[in-house]
Amino acid sequence: MSQPQTEITVGLIGAGRIGASHARILAERVPRARLAVVADPRPEAGQALAQRYGARSVTDPLDLIGDPRVDAVVITASSDAHTELIVAAATAGKPIFCEKPASLTLPDLDRALGAVAAADVPLQIGFNRRFAVDFRAAHDAVVAGAVGTPQLIRSLTRDPGLANPAGVPPWTIFLQTLIHDFDTVAWLNPGAEPVEVYATADALVAPDHKASGLLDTAVVVITFDNGARAVAEASFSAAYGYDVRAEVFGSAGMVTAGDGRSNAMVLRDAGGLHQGTARGDVELLGESYVAELAEFVSAVREGREPAVTGHDARRALVVALACIESVRQHAPVAVATMTAAARPGVR
Amino acid sequence: MSQPQTEITVGLIGAGRIGASHARILAERVPRARLAVVADPRPEAGQALAQRYGARSVTDPLDLIGDPRVDAVVITASSDAHTELIVAAATAGKPIFCEKPASLTLPDLDRALGAVAAADVPLQIGFNRRFAVDFRAAHDAVVAGAVGTPQLIRSLTRDPGLANPAGVPPWTIFLQTLIHDFDTVAWLNPGAEPVEVYATADALVAPDHKASGLLDTAVVVITFDNGARAVAEASFSAAYGYDVRAEVFGSAGMVTAGDGRSNAMVLRDAGGLHQGTARGDVELLGESYVAELAEFVSAVREGREPAVTGHDARRALVVALACIESVRQHAPVAVATMTAAARPGVR
Amino acid sequence: MSQPQTEITVGLIGAGRIGASHARILAERVPRARLAVVADPRPEAGQALAQRYGARSVTDPLDLIGDPRVDAVVITASSDAHTELIVAAATAGKPIFCEKPASLTLPDLDRALGAVAAADVPLQIGFNRRFAVDFRAAHDAVVAGAVGTPQLIRSLTRDPGLANPAGVPPWTIFLQTLIHDFDTVAWLNPGAEPVEVYATADALVAPDHKASGLLDTAVVVITFDNGARAVAEASFSAAYGYDVRAEVFGSAGMVTAGDGRSNAMVLRDAGGLHQGTARGDVELLGESYVAELAEFVSAVREGREPAVTGHDARRALVVALACIESVRQHAPVAVATMTAAARPGVR
Amino acid sequence: MSQPQTEITVGLIGAGRIGASHARILAERVPRARLAVVADPRPEAGQALAQRYGARSVTDPLDLIGDPRVDAVVITASSDAHTELIVAAATAGKPIFCEKPASLTLPDLDRALGAVAAADVPLQIGFNRRFAVDFRAAHDAVVAGAVGTPQLIRSLTRDPGLANPAGVPPWTIFLQTLIHDFDTVAWLNPGAEPVEVYATADALVAPDHKASGLLDTAVVVITFDNGARAVAEASFSAAYGYDVRAEVFGSAGMVTAGDGRSNAMVLRDAGGLHQGTARGDVELLGESYVAELAEFVSAVREGREPAVTGHDARRALVVALACIESVRQHAPVAVATMTAAARPGVR
Repeated sequence: MSQPQTEITVGLIGAGRIGASHARILAERVPRARLAVVADPRPEAGQALAQRYGARSVTDPLDLIGDPRVDAVVITASSDAHTELIVAAATAGKPIFCEKPASLTLPDLDRALGAVAAADVPLQIGFNRRFAVDFRAAHDAVVAGAVGTPQLIRSLTRDPGLANPAGVPPWTIFLQTLIHDFDTVAWLNPGAEPVEVYATADALVAPDHKASGLLDTAVVVITFDNGARAVAEASFSAAYGYDVRAEVFGSAGMVTAGDGRSNAMVLRDAGGLHQGTARGDVELLGESYVAELAEFVSAVREGREPAVTGHDARRALVVALACIESVRQHAPVAVATMTAAARPGVR
Repeated sequence: MSQPQTEITVGLIGAGRIGASHARILAERVPRARLAVVADPRPEAGQALAQRYGARSVTDPLDLIGDPRVDAVVITASSDAHTELIVAAATAGKPIFCEKPASLTLPDLDRALGAVAAADVPLQIGFNRRFAVDFRAAHDAVVAGAVGTPQLIRSLTRDPGLANPAGVPPWTIFLQTLIHDFDTVAWLNPGAEPVEVYATADALVAPDHKASGLLDTAVVVITFDNGARAVAEASFSAAYGYDVRAEVFGSAGMVTAGDGRSNAMVLRDAGGLHQGTARGDVELLGESYVAELAEFVSAVREGREPAVTGHDARRALVVALACIESVRQHAPVAVATMTAAARPGVR
Repeated sequence: MSQPQTEITVGLIGAGRIGASHARILAERVPRARLAVVADPRPEAGQALAQRYGARSVTDPLDLIGDPRVDAVVITASSDAHTELIVAAATAGKPIFCEKPASLTLPDLDRALGAVAAADVPLQIGFNRRFAVDFRAAHDAVVAGAVGTPQLIRSLTRDPGLANPAGVPPWTIFLQTLIHDFDTVAWLNPGAEPVEVYATADALVAPDHKASGLLDTAVVVITFDNGARAVAEASFSAAYGYDVRAEVFGSAGMVTAGDGRSNAMVLRDAGGLHQGTARGDVELLGESYVAELAEFVSAVREGREPAVTGHDARRALVVALACIESVRQHAPVAVATMTAAARPGVR
Repeated sequence: MSQPQTEITVGLIGAGRIGASHARILAERVPRARLAVVADPRPEAGQALAQRYGARSVTDPLDLIGDPRVDAVVITASSDAHTELIVAAATAGKPIFCEKPASLTLPDLDRALGAVAAADVPLQIGFNRRFAVDFRAAHDAVVAGAVGTPQLIRSLTRDPGLANPAGVPPWTIFLQTLIHDFDTVAWLNPGAEPVEVYATADALVAPDHKASGLLDTAVVVITFDNGARAVAEASFSAAYGYDVRAEVFGSAGMVTAGDGRSNAMVLRDAGGLHQGTARGDVELLGESYVAELAEFVSAVREGREPAVTGHDARRALVVALACIESVRQHAPVAVATMTAAARPGVR
């Protein structure tokens, strides 16, 4: 599997929106990857996606995982299925790419990571912002010392729209959305670990759904063990499009990443100056999805650990869980209280 | 005093750095203003500044305030002298421009505002960012509804350097620096009032001085009664210059203000693209100081209330005091607890 | 060949730098294209490139053109070979993508276009800037009337380096480099045709090579039949990287395209603000090469004329030839004098 | 007159639009200047302007020039009166600030410059762009060698509107508008002199007035004796406001100046990203008018030559005259042919 010229045969589990996007990328954009099987419990969805790229489809993901012709597994199923799928794939000795969040609870995640560690298979989590060229350049600048010691960090996610407020599970804003930002701020503060979290959240976009648990707007302050404070912020309804940005201010300077403009065209007319804004995650961050899957396939081919690991997934999840606790307690929460019961030793 | 063609004779109290800057502006930049007297307890400092602009100097500010030839008073003395000077000037019936913070405690401020109310004199506070053209344009856009209902607000201050950490009084970052940002976020969320504050602060720039009470880095989350959350953030040591920015995200869009670039020149060379950054508050915000003093002189001449009032000063101070309490308690603090004992009725 | 699901088998002629780039794109980036054969008179170069993508190699391009398994031909050979290759491919009934310039003389080009017209095969020219997203957005804005009637147009090319001045054929700056800009300004002035050209050129980068005919810096003014003036400008040595920009000023506004920044990351430090600049054409315009080849493959599959035609190639060449004449005469030159002897009727 | 503390008493000739602007600046913005007299043949216009700033008014400019209380003269009369006014002021020994163009013909200008040289009085021409901070920063970068040897230069002027096409004298676009750009490109190419000009111009904004000599759109290519080519470009009708920009590309990099945005505020909404654009010369370049008059007053007080001299005026006029000749001849024109008959020796 690690010979440079080998083509990696990939099975993809979950034919939803992000599954369809990853399938296209695996089929058309990632060199030396081949999308061979798509698994989805809904036969039509799986078949339609598989046929588009000349792949087979199955309804039971365990058939895909157990197929000896499948070299690696890409999990884009619903989040609550991630744990079992990771465990199954690891047990089958298959390298795993799993969309964020890796799991929704810490016991689940530790069980998944334990299986991965026991099988010693590569596991990559879908924190795609790490692969956006400007975010990566910002990270490289931080690592190179260009901003000195990080002191104030910012990461935000603004989604263009909240189509179906009623369908959003509680705590989604922390577990599914801000989990990206929690990873980003830790990645941009290399070597530091979060120690405390304060979170506040509300239903400002769809206040009618607050009673049923919807939180569509949130601000989180994270204190790291090197003293840096990070602010992570999210909204489920940005009128101007999809907006993802980061900022690291340190003792020697500042880097920023994220530019919501759709391209470099500028129009000036009687109303002033105008530029287009990116309308969706794929428009804004499309190349980052390609790059993360290319990294995964490379890591599989080279038999090495991918650039985003289970450790990263765990740190982000712990912060998300601390946010939930902070909202419940209406107080800052020590991150250690989240992990006290958790097993150590995952990579 | 309110006839359109009248020249306003101004007395300035306090010949320090900001006093010297305001003196120059009053002497050279504000139409129909004349700097006539400078008061400073240090005779040399007062004389030097006064002579530069053909003004007289006194050492006792009460002499200046009591001088019948002085139409209006500009207070740029040290913050702990503000209250008594406002009371004296108000009692003398003189319109007052006072640098921020108007006072350092709520009882002091309410005493000052009471005197102002009793005398019915105009009082303007030096929240100069309101007069920066881009901040003003952002505010006007918010008022015009361009961003809909504000939901997420940001304001930050990054000062280029911390020359003398030992000389910084405790809580300066909230009372002197972030007080600008507290005014900004309220001004950019028109009609809403702050209800809760969470603050975290540290000595990341000069950790050796933390034991003596220095806090040089802070992040504050403010919840408003319309649900909007504001993040205010400050650092006392920005390597790249003076940086002041604001952002308002609402249901219909976002406005941003603040551009730390010193001018529009762009250099591209073998090292990439380069632009200059503003190195000090006067370089970055110089015209806002002119505009705020021009507004004050206009308000005095027209006999009307200035654009920034005692109410604004009080709201910002209450937030700053809540921040101090939040740091002490390591918890979110209701703003109402700050004002419970305070007198109502100030304008 | 025009059925939607058909894969197009492509033969590529010329294994040089741009040939290698196009080969990679055809192999890895263009859906429903397959790179099957590479032709190059240098057997090692052809073999190396072919093997990289699992293709065969031949040394005689006519073997490639005549191969019945080859559906379409991509010509990246040296410019002086283009004419004969186009004629041969057209005669064989094969759709053709040809790098710019299609030919180096008007008789040659008209011969090539005549063969294409006679065979009624699609011909697309490699004016890739039309496929850069910001250039395309600018063009779409112009077509939509956003700038009104174009009056002043600008297009420029600045190449990062002139590695081998001695190896540059005379008039390269017009025939190979500015030919992009000549196409761009005509495309951004829809429906108008160039009527007069004034060109001035010099050897400012490598003055020692001027005697041998090198011109490395040029400025061209083109007058169109709608009165618009376009300025095209080129240099062979930009210290800061690869720079390609365009601007259309019209009666209702202006659009600009081209942003030499490598990505959206911004670093601010003690030296000011910094951003990276793109260092090569592939870094700056990489996606435009993918998009133009995707357009070609789509046009072939759909049996339609591609978005860039022989007419465009001819217009740009006529302007380039008029530039050469303008430099020789040191005077403005009517474009019509270039075409007086040329055959009509090409599409 | 050259003692540092002396106030300079200024007389201003010409109470039109630019005269009113300069009067306000002299009265309110320039330290140690006092506007004492305004001269205008229209008594009402002169009086109104003078009264606004507490100055006297006269109808005969010679009365102003001959007034011993007037230390320096600012000429904002109509262009065709400049020559005689410069001669009269110089003869009276008065330092002179004169709006561009200094004269409309070379014999006139040489006569004016001869009088200035004979009287040895300071003369400054109103090339205000040299005092815009970004233009000045670009110039300083060029002088410091940041772009190496200039090779390609650009300067443009786009005016927001052409209110009265019938009232525009012939050749205005060269003599009144582009004369700014001719100065700019020479100033940005230090030490080099223009040797050849090619100009093309048209009536694209108001084609109905072309027959009466109106040219509202022009492009000029200037070749300098160091080989650099400059493109100067103008339009009388920019829908998006007032736009003035410059660019210097050289062997080591590029600088650009000019940013038509009215301020740094950015609005993003459902229609994308928006910024305001400056609508007039005073909005865009207001501070440059202040700075040029401050420079004049400083030069007068210090008894030194101002930063913009008669030599600069002459070089720009010669280029403008060569442009007219180039349009007439429809050919490039050597600049030397313009100056062959002119007197040497002006500074």
